[in-house]
Amino acid sequence: MRARVFFFSSTVPSLTLQSSATRFRTPSFLPHRRFHLLLQRTITQSTTLSPNSTPRTTLTPFASISSMSSSFYPEKARVPPAIQSPTPPITKFKIGLCQLRVTADKLRNILHTRTALEEAAAKGAKLVVLPEIWNSPYSNDSFPVYAEDIDSGFDASPSTAMLSEVARLLKITIIGGSIPEKSGGKLYNTCCVFGPDGNLKAKHRKIHLFDIDIPGKITFKESKTLTAGETPTTVDTEVGRIGIGICYDIRFQELAMLYAARGAQLICYPGAFNMTTGPLHWELLQRARAVDNQLYVATCSPARDADAGYVAWGHSTLVGPFGEVLATTEHDEAIIISEIDYSQIELRRTNLPLEKQRRGDLYQLVDVQRLNSE
Amino acid sequence: MRARVFFFSSTVPSLTLQSSATRFRTPSFLPHRRFHLLLQRTITQSTTLSPNSTPRTTLTPFASISSMSSSFYPEKARVPPAIQSPTPPITKFKIGLCQLRVTADKLRNILHTRTALEEAAAKGAKLVVLPEIWNSPYSNDSFPVYAEDIDSGFDASPSTAMLSEVARLLKITIIGGSIPEKSGGKLYNTCCVFGPDGNLKAKHRKIHLFDIDIPGKITFKESKTLTAGETPTTVDTEVGRIGIGICYDIRFQELAMLYAARGAQLICYPGAFNMTTGPLHWELLQRARAVDNQLYVATCSPARDADAGYVAWGHSTLVGPFGEVLATTEHDEAIIISEIDYSQIELRRTNLPLEKQRRGDLYQLVDVQRLNSE
Repeated sequence: MRARVFFFSSTVPSLTLQSSATRFRTPSFLPHRRFHLLLQRTITQSTTLSPNSTPRTTLTPFASISSMSSSFYPEKARVPPAIQSPTPPITKFKIGLCQLRVTADKLRNILHTRTALEEAAAKGAKLVVLPEIWNSPYSNDSFPVYAEDIDSGFDASPSTAMLSEVARLLKITIIGGSIPEKSGGKLYNTCCVFGPDGNLKAKHRKIHLFDIDIPGKITFKESKTLTAGETPTTVDTEVGRIGIGICYDIRFQELAMLYAARGAQLICYPGAFNMTTGPLHWELLQRARAVDNQLYVATCSPARDADAGYVAWGHSTLVGPFGEVLATTEHDEAIIISEIDYSQIELRRTNLPLEKQRRGDLYQLVDVQRLNSE
Repeated sequence: MRARVFFFSSTVPSLTLQSSATRFRTPSFLPHRRFHLLLQRTITQSTTLSPNSTPRTTLTPFASISSMSSSFYPEKARVPPAIQSPTPPITKFKIGLCQLRVTADKLRNILHTRTALEEAAAKGAKLVVLPEIWNSPYSNDSFPVYAEDIDSGFDASPSTAMLSEVARLLKITIIGGSIPEKSGGKLYNTCCVFGPDGNLKAKHRKIHLFDIDIPGKITFKESKTLTAGETPTTVDTEVGRIGIGICYDIRFQELAMLYAARGAQLICYPGAFNMTTGPLHWELLQRARAVDNQLYVATCSPARDADAGYVAWGHSTLVGPFGEVLATTEHDEAIIISEIDYSQIELRRTNLPLEKQRRGDLYQLVDVQRLNSE
């Protein structure tokens, strides 16, 4: 049963400035044997089923749901098995999404963002989400110039210093969009999460870099300047267990599945989709992640600046666990205030018990780092 | 390299009436050791990465896409590794989706469906898709009454006899929606695929039974009468490698991921969503499966009958590999004719090279039966 309390285990080494971030490292001393044992168990059981033998119906002509569930090993569809979400101190609250215009003036961006955070908090938001790359223009030329060394402390990172101060003063949780981060001679696209005490609770470095090429429409290669993060990030906050993805991370359904299996109740994706993929895919991907994993999804984009080198789509949105758009906006600056109620997750998972209906005998999603850390 | 040619291997035992269906059985004599070896290899390599060491940038300051890809083991994000799609005899063709009204008169349903197939073929369709449960009312009371014993031959199955004859006469491929099937004292919700020679190429039994409970809206428990299928189904046809899902199967993103990894170019989901989940999720799920896996998705619903015990949503749809709705309809009877062009798949996968950007070091989707069959 250790997996059930994994997130609260003191055996996970805490990283600098990441006291309660649920990051999974893969230290070289960890035995690989556990991985084999677990999957051996999985396969051994699943192979007792064959197309011509369906043991669940040998005893009764009409199988009950519960017997159906158990013989198809739904719990094995996630490896390790999915973790139940914790009950956070606050289960129903207002969320704020600050869709902000970003300029080339970093100090202005910081002050402007501060004002927006204050406005969202004044409207009752206990959790506020910021856009991707909110302190800098979104360009490979700008990333090295605007990057901050977050790990060296607030003196080296005025953007995160502001976030920490505002979180503490306003007693809110902040999903700090993202800023370019410099660390060890590399650059990252990094999201910082601050709690109401002002402490940095997690730092997510964009895992999937935005390298796309749609000729005549949009071509961008973040990998020209940025390095990809090495770990998924879930973080326990006073407003729930939150998974973090940045923009292009949302295209990878596996990451959202993995976060759901880690017990996330909400996934926040700061993101700056563009004028080509935005209208095609931005809302679609958010709604898909929400309905497939039966959790909340919140996105926050920069406001559109038609004169910028990279023109953002805007349309920051909150989606509920039934895939329903709860709040959204167009492309101008806006602060969206909407409500999250985690009882809706339980309701939807009762309506459609997907978790109990998965076929662990046919497919399994492996969370490699969580498996290795056990 | 054996996995690359898996679908053409003669070592897969052919099942009765399923000459070229790519079904994966898990015979008890297969060694489980292969599974462990493969995953051992996976983990051993992925653990050479840690949050503090990113070997991809040790040689050059800015990693190229190709070096980024290889160090994150994108090929390991699918276990076994994904198979390239074959080049079928026909790569650009018309598809027909026959959204048909279903009555309690089985003979009428068969004749009506025959007429629709002829009309679709006359309009140029080389591939025609039928609705879920097209020969019977959709109800637990009707399933046992209308069920046919497909494996006992066409004398025992007038519905599939008609499909076979029409496929042969019109030289088309038919994704035969689904009918209630009786076999070995059990009932299944079964889709038959016929080739232009009239042969049954594959038989898919709905894997995920439709058991949902949204009080006051829709409650249904297929598991009261039906047994779930034991295997995913991909089938090589003259119009491409096609994955089959039936209705509720579409809610499980893992199945579509698994089909894409098996090289499917198109997933067909005969399905009868209802008046609650239809408007909320029907198009969303189709577009999500298409855009996430970068392949075509075709759905076919019964037409709506407001007087029926189960009222279908309708809205049969073809979605392209960019998540774009290529053709759709409302809820009345309709035959949709639209075009599929597999070069679009290649184009979209070049635009957004998701397959090369996945993080096999962080997550892996295991296709249990394919793994065991190797």
